[in-house]
Amino acid sequence: MRRFATERAKRLLFGSFRSSPPLFSGAPLCSSASAAAAAMDSAASPVTLDTINPKVLKCEYAVRGEIVTHAQRLQQDLQSKPGSHPFEEILYCNIGNPQSLGQQPVTFFREVLALCDHPPLLDKSETHALFSADAIARAWQILDAIPGGATGAYSHSQGIKGLRDAIADGIAARDGFPANPDDIFLTDGASPAVHMMMQLLIRSEKDGILCPIPQYPLYSASIALHGGSLVPYYLNESTGWGLEISELKKQLEDARSKGITVRSLVVINPGNPTGQVLAEENQKEIVEFCKNEKLVLLADEVYQENIYVDDKKFNSFKKIARSMGYGDEDLPLVSFQSVSKGYYGECGKRGGYMEVTGFSAEVREQIYKVASVNLCSNISGQILASLVMNPPKVGDESYESFDAEKTGILSSLARRAKALEDAFNGLEGVTCNKAEGAMYLFPRLHLPKKAIEAAKAVKAAPDAFYAHRLLDATGIVVVPGSGFGQVPGTWHVRCTILPQEDKIPAIISRLKAFHEAFMEEFRD
Amino acid sequence: MRRFATERAKRLLFGSFRSSPPLFSGAPLCSSASAAAAAMDSAASPVTLDTINPKVLKCEYAVRGEIVTHAQRLQQDLQSKPGSHPFEEILYCNIGNPQSLGQQPVTFFREVLALCDHPPLLDKSETHALFSADAIARAWQILDAIPGGATGAYSHSQGIKGLRDAIADGIAARDGFPANPDDIFLTDGASPAVHMMMQLLIRSEKDGILCPIPQYPLYSASIALHGGSLVPYYLNESTGWGLEISELKKQLEDARSKGITVRSLVVINPGNPTGQVLAEENQKEIVEFCKNEKLVLLADEVYQENIYVDDKKFNSFKKIARSMGYGDEDLPLVSFQSVSKGYYGECGKRGGYMEVTGFSAEVREQIYKVASVNLCSNISGQILASLVMNPPKVGDESYESFDAEKTGILSSLARRAKALEDAFNGLEGVTCNKAEGAMYLFPRLHLPKKAIEAAKAVKAAPDAFYAHRLLDATGIVVVPGSGFGQVPGTWHVRCTILPQEDKIPAIISRLKAFHEAFMEEFRD
Repeated sequence: MRRFATERAKRLLFGSFRSSPPLFSGAPLCSSASAAAAAMDSAASPVTLDTINPKVLKCEYAVRGEIVTHAQRLQQDLQSKPGSHPFEEILYCNIGNPQSLGQQPVTFFREVLALCDHPPLLDKSETHALFSADAIARAWQILDAIPGGATGAYSHSQGIKGLRDAIADGIAARDGFPANPDDIFLTDGASPAVHMMMQLLIRSEKDGILCPIPQYPLYSASIALHGGSLVPYYLNESTGWGLEISELKKQLEDARSKGITVRSLVVINPGNPTGQVLAEENQKEIVEFCKNEKLVLLADEVYQENIYVDDKKFNSFKKIARSMGYGDEDLPLVSFQSVSKGYYGECGKRGGYMEVTGFSAEVREQIYKVASVNLCSNISGQILASLVMNPPKVGDESYESFDAEKTGILSSLARRAKALEDAFNGLEGVTCNKAEGAMYLFPRLHLPKKAIEAAKAVKAAPDAFYAHRLLDATGIVVVPGSGFGQVPGTWHVRCTILPQEDKIPAIISRLKAFHEAFMEEFRD
Repeated sequence: MRRFATERAKRLLFGSFRSSPPLFSGAPLCSSASAAAAAMDSAASPVTLDTINPKVLKCEYAVRGEIVTHAQRLQQDLQSKPGSHPFEEILYCNIGNPQSLGQQPVTFFREVLALCDHPPLLDKSETHALFSADAIARAWQILDAIPGGATGAYSHSQGIKGLRDAIADGIAARDGFPANPDDIFLTDGASPAVHMMMQLLIRSEKDGILCPIPQYPLYSASIALHGGSLVPYYLNESTGWGLEISELKKQLEDARSKGITVRSLVVINPGNPTGQVLAEENQKEIVEFCKNEKLVLLADEVYQENIYVDDKKFNSFKKIARSMGYGDEDLPLVSFQSVSKGYYGECGKRGGYMEVTGFSAEVREQIYKVASVNLCSNISGQILASLVMNPPKVGDESYESFDAEKTGILSSLARRAKALEDAFNGLEGVTCNKAEGAMYLFPRLHLPKKAIEAAKAVKAAPDAFYAHRLLDATGIVVVPGSGFGQVPGTWHVRCTILPQEDKIPAIISRLKAFHEAFMEEFRD
């Protein structure tokens, strides 16, 4: 009985049949395993699949899963034998990794990082020809905030105080409510922050975390690694991936009746993989629900800058809670932010933070202790997190060029989202909700029975089957919906909106040609 | 019975009486807890100390523990009320954080990082006046190794292939045996790598990890967080912290007789906190022991560049194993390396790697999967890891200045180690082994009975009592030996050798004056 939630989650996540061991398993998941290791007699080894931590075995992470490994093999083929596949390059639409697809970093941010990496530049006259005046000023300001100006020293385990001050200022300016720098924990991207909270909250598989389905698989992976139970709640695809309180209540009660202690609600806003932006009224209901049910609200707000429609606006959950008159004492709330998303897309810098409110001092000490075991997050990522929360302002030398870069990236993303959405909706048997925000489309594939049978015959989930066929035919990498979870019997893929704009028409025509041929092949 | 190892470890680690709740607990451990949080009615909160993961509660990390929090309070006092304490500054000798104490970063490394952070610099003529030619060449080389030159993109989850190639070359040059870039996992410092291995190996508290006592508390913390048992083996203080195979065997058998499955042996070489460098013959015995007992050898080799005595030399365990004719199939061996230590001391960059050999392909896939959940380590840290394993070579434009910086730092560290060692040995009732390597001294305090009674009266471990008195009197922060573990009834402190050389005489005279007064006060 107590295994209910994880078992159910697994079924939801991977569809009626597992895609693993997959059809396409000619090579190991990790193609890099050395020949020597592969040749080992694994039974004689002190460490085998039977003797490792079963939580590790259970964890799945589709965004970098088997399909990506397959894509990497195809890419190697293309390098060693050009012309060996019917496409010239692999287009990685599996992951929100903008700069890997050609997005350029924001100049101001990189200027400041370079100056902080090599502070002697600040004393050289040539530097003024190479860097903007406000980048130089900002670098001085940041170095002044770091004890001894030492960007190579471990910092306070929550991050450099002066940078947390800047982030708190940025949050306050965004929300219109104060933020406390002591509530900020800087982290190497949002993922370690999520792990920290899961580690804190999960005691055993009897502890449950309410997660949206579809969800970003960091959550299912982290819950599996920490031995908890994922308690799924469905987003309503027919209302644009609506988050319904009645569904939350139903799933909460259901889990409780099975002996699960539900500790927390995860909300991803804007949605990943679903791209919806929550309405303010809806957010208020969610806050009320968490307060009443005594749940920790884990708010994944890493796409807060990625909004593409005029009628929607990002509101942080903290702003919503404070606007309802709720303070620290009313509900524990954690907001995750990252430098990897937004218009900046600095995934490789591994910067991010969580704003932790509504926990008692003694519990916060425990969070601090866990942070301190890893000493601190990387300082460049810390600096960048302070910059994205406090970018150049009107009047700064860099402002105009900065704003042009920012607006250029965001408006292009909006156009790409619309073009790809329209393209998916133009395909036979495909319906696709709007990407109001984030970086993804999550179209539903209404597959012919024959395609589903064909997938079954090779022990693959139908959407994994489709995604692999798409990859083999076009070089486009998307992630099967089964990696995110979906209503049983429905099939989706997640596709980023990140390829550069000049490539979108070719992508659309390749997608269209593939899909037509696929439907033709499997038409019932 | 099955709780034996953890209970025993706890007793060893914290002495006969716990230092927590400590004598000095006027303020919470985390001084940053907001007033609002402190005012919360914690009993009504959905998250309390009684309802969080007990493994988190159990975990201890003395290096950033209560004494450091106390030091930070004193530092605030000094800022707000200069002259409020009998010293002008806090000297953080608690942690191996060289740049926080004034060590300068190595110029070449920082030049390359700055150029990679802002690649447009490479196209500007002024850049040649600001950067060395080989730093520019190296930056080009690194950018060429990164797909699309995108330093802001997530990389392969093991790290950028071209950087792993450079690291493997560096390892091969160091060891005289080949290294495989596919065996390298780049990580945000060594700590996350250690966590990954503990997560893989530990299934329950019945799984044990053999750790030296004294140990670096990352190991005890990580084992606690992952719910395993620390199986202690003592280093022999009387033979310069010798690692004796008979002791390993005894503790292994003892743990096995208690139902513990011992999975792994942790060896820290050069030693932390103990500073010894293992002899080659000793390392061979250790390899043989792991092979025979089917243990994973976890080799913490982050101080591999920090050797201060002529008669000792660093040998990696992989070199030792290969020189014995043992290959991948003979024993699983993980070597941890970090950019935080050595002569570079780039703690804030959070770079490092583990070299993973001797695991089956299928187990390695699991390690890769866990790495992929966090996407990748930070790219600046990855670049820096490749640089420290492949620094400038004779003939490169930077070589001479690089070598002068490196030699200057290492020879100064050797002098500081010797000066502080002599100083400790000159104190009444203190004996201190040589720091042959690493960054620490771990002197033994033979405390008068009256001092031990005084500590007991305030519920502190005697070494914690001494360390707090030292801090209050001198501003010098050292970590009580009870945070690392020690033979019951013995007392130590760990003190880094990192204060800048011009400060050493003053530190020694403050230490001497304090110690004399302390001994006078408590003389039996």
